[in-house]
Amino acid sequence: MFLDESTAETRYLQLAETLAEAIRRGTLQPGSRVPSVRRCAQSHSVSINTVVAAYRMLEDRGLIEARPQSGFYVRSTLPALKAASPPSDRIEKPADDVLALIDTVFAAQQNPAFTNLSLACPQTADFYPGGKLGRMLASQLRRQPDLIGQYALPPGSLRLRQQIARRGMALGMLLEPGDVVLTHGCMEALQLALRATTKPGDCVGLESPTYFYLLPLLASLGLKALEIPTDPQHGLSLDALELLLDEKRLNAVIAMPTVQNPLGCTMPLAAKKRLARLMNDHQVPLIEDGLYAEIQFGGVLEPAVKAFDHGGWVLFCSSFTKTLAPDFRIGWMAGGRFSDALRKLKAVSSMAESQLLSETLATFLASGGYDHHLRNLRKRYAAQVDEARAIIARHFPRGTRATQPAGGFVFWVEFPHGVDCVQLFHQLLDEHICLTPGMLYSPSGRYRNGLRLSCCYPFNERYRQALARVGARACAMSGLPAGIASGG
Amino acid sequence: MFLDESTAETRYLQLAETLAEAIRRGTLQPGSRVPSVRRCAQSHSVSINTVVAAYRMLEDRGLIEARPQSGFYVRSTLPALKAASPPSDRIEKPADDVLALIDTVFAAQQNPAFTNLSLACPQTADFYPGGKLGRMLASQLRRQPDLIGQYALPPGSLRLRQQIARRGMALGMLLEPGDVVLTHGCMEALQLALRATTKPGDCVGLESPTYFYLLPLLASLGLKALEIPTDPQHGLSLDALELLLDEKRLNAVIAMPTVQNPLGCTMPLAAKKRLARLMNDHQVPLIEDGLYAEIQFGGVLEPAVKAFDHGGWVLFCSSFTKTLAPDFRIGWMAGGRFSDALRKLKAVSSMAESQLLSETLATFLASGGYDHHLRNLRKRYAAQVDEARAIIARHFPRGTRATQPAGGFVFWVEFPHGVDCVQLFHQLLDEHICLTPGMLYSPSGRYRNGLRLSCCYPFNERYRQALARVGARACAMSGLPAGIASGG
Repeated sequence: MFLDESTAETRYLQLAETLAEAIRRGTLQPGSRVPSVRRCAQSHSVSINTVVAAYRMLEDRGLIEARPQSGFYVRSTLPALKAASPPSDRIEKPADDVLALIDTVFAAQQNPAFTNLSLACPQTADFYPGGKLGRMLASQLRRQPDLIGQYALPPGSLRLRQQIARRGMALGMLLEPGDVVLTHGCMEALQLALRATTKPGDCVGLESPTYFYLLPLLASLGLKALEIPTDPQHGLSLDALELLLDEKRLNAVIAMPTVQNPLGCTMPLAAKKRLARLMNDHQVPLIEDGLYAEIQFGGVLEPAVKAFDHGGWVLFCSSFTKTLAPDFRIGWMAGGRFSDALRKLKAVSSMAESQLLSETLATFLASGGYDHHLRNLRKRYAAQVDEARAIIARHFPRGTRATQPAGGFVFWVEFPHGVDCVQLFHQLLDEHICLTPGMLYSPSGRYRNGLRLSCCYPFNERYRQALARVGARACAMSGLPAGIASGG
Repeated sequence: MFLDESTAETRYLQLAETLAEAIRRGTLQPGSRVPSVRRCAQSHSVSINTVVAAYRMLEDRGLIEARPQSGFYVRSTLPALKAASPPSDRIEKPADDVLALIDTVFAAQQNPAFTNLSLACPQTADFYPGGKLGRMLASQLRRQPDLIGQYALPPGSLRLRQQIARRGMALGMLLEPGDVVLTHGCMEALQLALRATTKPGDCVGLESPTYFYLLPLLASLGLKALEIPTDPQHGLSLDALELLLDEKRLNAVIAMPTVQNPLGCTMPLAAKKRLARLMNDHQVPLIEDGLYAEIQFGGVLEPAVKAFDHGGWVLFCSSFTKTLAPDFRIGWMAGGRFSDALRKLKAVSSMAESQLLSETLATFLASGGYDHHLRNLRKRYAAQVDEARAIIARHFPRGTRATQPAGGFVFWVEFPHGVDCVQLFHQLLDEHICLTPGMLYSPSGRYRNGLRLSCCYPFNERYRQALARVGARACAMSGLPAGIASGG
């Protein structure tokens, strides 16, 4: 029975991949009708159920859409980005004025008068099961009113660490509760991971573009950043990485191999395995930021690099802040051979996490409600990413390129030359629209024409119009006509 | 009116100080009756009310006690400690195995089978207004259920920062809400303060003995520790400090001038002023750990060193974890000239604090319930410290010395030579009694015969018997008879 099910699962995944490839190559054109379920089942010699499962997966990923009484159609897509950066060998120290720009972005972000298109911080509670969590928190308070008056000591809630260890299996990781260190969000996990594996003056390899907060974080620890070319589709260039590792120029690497921020891409499975092998062979720690690893659009979760980490050189960091309970700010890490050092570092850095919040989270995870919630979240984000891409296709200047995210709610746009995104950012601030300029995502300040867009906001008219305004401004700046789908 | 009240206040403080001095000098012997209120009023030419206020204050401080229908009596006291350490000029790198010892202590601490006599982590909810805070949290959840789903961004709850700034006045500090950075407990505040003011290889001056977690914290940041002699009564030796500052051997100083941990002492006001002037004159940052500054036994709170910080060289760190809501783990800092750097460092280190918990705390502070709670807490801790000292006087070996804390719930005991506290720690572990050996409080491992005792536990028979057992073991180890009061 189990074997049969497993085969059926493989079959629908294969079919979905074949169809996705046909869409990417243009064999199936945007707007065209996808073969009917019956015809597809015949031509691929699979069951009707397999086709239905494959189509549902493509729909989840935003590649096709159902139209009532008419069948499935290929959605309009955008030209994919190619890795533009040549292998970098410059070592850059992050500029401090990037922080000033971030401050401006943050100030606008927290001002309700601004429409936010960029930051990956959902400010809308309806993306989260806040009501349910609130009731569980209230019930936890009734059950253990004494928790408020108890000093939380490391390693913190065993129940939560058990739940986290169990969930690790879905990403291919075999964790013990004792491996899990609770942290104050993923940011603290990354900070501790860097402190446990490097010393000031060391050089850390980063994706390019990368999560922008890493740059001031590295600077604050006296670390140098080295950008590694990163393909918008396949992630970190492993050839470039291997070269740098062979030359012993990296003391650690920090990367998001699954649903990268800001690109949205996920490394192919084979690349993840190679990455794990490379790091273990060279005995250089990989800090794997898995913040969005549970919001993948594909039907089955792709495993983490940590799943292939035989020597303990991968430190997996994650959090529930982007997926379940932003305000709880509870993150965690599994630190491989650095576990012991991390536990001690956490204790002297900020001691422990709130037991009240940890226990509430543990109860929610144990209740099984998390998976249900994640399914809805993935679907919603996939639809919003797709809608945002459709607006971009209509309003952004010809020659604009965008990534096709594998999950999460951010993706990356590159304008044709002539559009300066820092200038665009300042222009749009006047219209109370907030963007994050692409140069924030690179220690060397490249990507002047890049932009991260975020779809973690409710898609109302205000959001749609703001997005269209970005396009109009960019068209005016570049002198190019709107409508990039036509010019693909 | 206001002037009169102020004068009356000064008068009762002066009277209390005179009487306390008489008790310290032995003019008023332990067990002897204090002059009646009427006689005292006559002999000091003050009003009855002034005497009543002064006696109440001495009672709060555990120096005298009321006996029904009989009047006030001087409580039994212990011989005071003298600063034993000669000025240190050794620079020590904290040993890593101290962490192993701390781990053992922590493991025992979290094991309910052990009776804890040492850690300054109240594990008993009845010291805190948990019920009231819980109801406020529940009501906050009902009022703003959306908070759980909102991503907390720096600088965090304005309401809480306003309340903190207001409360700063009671410690003589004039703060703006914008000066206040919220942190994940005081531990994170200290960590950020060190990172903002030093770089690896720098040398940080510490009290001796000092809060033991500082040693691995300094080690984790690549900082060297330099012990500064600290008087059990008057705190940090400012002459030694000035010498070190003149020789430019310190890059920062970290100290608890008010209710020091582990000594329990508070620096005299004049010394605090001199400390502030010294740091400002030498332009060396002072990280002032004010964790227990609101649990002073005296009637009026002694001001913080930060109150005299004219140039912004003092970084004041505190938290509500030891005074109000341990599990919330919300701390804060006012960073003087380092404020801006601290705000940025907090954001890249762990982003922000939970809005739900911050807002609940703000509501509690605004309700005025905090001062009422603190009054009860001070009274309870003062009584427990006194009772613990009485047990020590009876059961600990002749020649033992102990500090007289000015607040908080910890104090310091030094055994006569012949008692090794690490050995004592291991012996008592077998009896399921947990201590913290004094050597943890010094980077050079001195204080082999020292011990920190904590009175933040409910004083039941189990606690009392465990404390007596420590005395019995120490007597056995040293071959000295029990009963130190007689040998004072």
